[in-house]
Amino acid sequence: MKQRMPVVENILSANDRLAEENRLRLDGAAVYGVNLMASPGAGKTSLIEHTIRNLSGQISLAVVDGDIATSIDADRAAAAGAEAVQINTGGECHLDAVMLQGALNQLDLTRYDLLLVENVGNLVCPASFKLGTHQNVLIASIPEGDDKPYKYPTMYRGVDALVINKIDLLPYIDFDMEYFQRGVEVLNPGLTTFPISCRTGEGLDSWLHWLQGQAAKNKSAQNT
Amino acid sequence: MKQRMPVVENILSANDRLAEENRLRLDGAAVYGVNLMASPGAGKTSLIEHTIRNLSGQISLAVVDGDIATSIDADRAAAAGAEAVQINTGGECHLDAVMLQGALNQLDLTRYDLLLVENVGNLVCPASFKLGTHQNVLIASIPEGDDKPYKYPTMYRGVDALVINKIDLLPYIDFDMEYFQRGVEVLNPGLTTFPISCRTGEGLDSWLHWLQGQAAKNKSAQNT
Repeated sequence: MKQRMPVVENILSANDRLAEENRLRLDGAAVYGVNLMASPGAGKTSLIEHTIRNLSGQISLAVVDGDIATSIDADRAAAAGAEAVQINTGGECHLDAVMLQGALNQLDLTRYDLLLVENVGNLVCPASFKLGTHQNVLIASIPEGDDKPYKYPTMYRGVDALVINKIDLLPYIDFDMEYFQRGVEVLNPGLTTFPISCRTGEGLDSWLHWLQGQAAKNKSAQNT
Repeated sequence: MKQRMPVVENILSANDRLAEENRLRLDGAAVYGVNLMASPGAGKTSLIEHTIRNLSGQISLAVVDGDIATSIDADRAAAAGAEAVQINTGGECHLDAVMLQGALNQLDLTRYDLLLVENVGNLVCPASFKLGTHQNVLIASIPEGDDKPYKYPTMYRGVDALVINKIDLLPYIDFDMEYFQRGVEVLNPGLTTFPISCRTGEGLDSWLHWLQGQAAKNKSAQNT
């Protein structure tokens, strides 16, 4: 369907301009923005809940939740103690910069150090749309299988950090970690990686420490 | 992004026409077509492997595998003993009718009773594109979580049967089957459902029996 390309390109460049505006707004308020992407059910919302619960008191955090339908995720983030804005994409398979712009309008950014954006569960489309966040983080999960870097290269290539969730299920699943990590290494050499289990809490400390460090570094860079 | 709508509508209606042509070709050869959709890693390829191995000798079967990149899935289907055609979508997040048309051109349809089409791993976009198959089957999996019907209603609403894979993981995961099935029932009342485990083989017999019955019914309807 080649005839779609010019339209798609125009949409993407309009999106990029808006993403830059979003970034300027975040930087103006010294808010560190993280775009969390994953397959449906990899554990984005669980990771956000743990992050809110563990960092509350140390860091001021807001959440933007993108979903096709329902406010289940924003409700969970709010219950965990964060300001949360739900975006229902109404069928769209990804967030884009204009949707994030709408969500930013609903937040008093001066109140936060960190903004976690939960994208729609999808390993394809979100990779093509910049939002204006500082980092793209992919959450993989053990039950998805060890071949995912090979099958979704654009997503794995484009992220700044990788969380590997549900490592508590490794004993019950055929998952070759070496094969998985070899695929990641080819696409994204030296990628910062956090093997974790939201269920048992294993590995969460490293993730929280890294995230807090990134937000603190951003804050001090913006304030100088 | 309202300005996209007319373009999208034109693409969808062109797709629908091609899907009808694909259906006519399948019907002309008395081939029963099944479109398998799922999240990345829910077990589409594993289910196809089991289906090939169990039905070989009883039914003549071909596979079309859709993926962003690689031929991992078609290789696995071929190793299991079926004729397999790989479609690499080159970044597209779903199969469409024109891609299936290309794949059908590579198969001698008169040789088969059943065609299994493995869509791209994605719970959003494949739901919008008819291929021309007779049935749409969704493969859910336990680790994805029990809230998926609520969060991906278009997909759950549009399918003719549901496979729930990885039930062997139920003891290790918080998954409320009643909550899950209540969500399914609201969207798709009375949906034919097969709880299975590709790992242990549990429940596979019902799926195989149903699939074989559908293909046989189609064959006899086309031949009368």
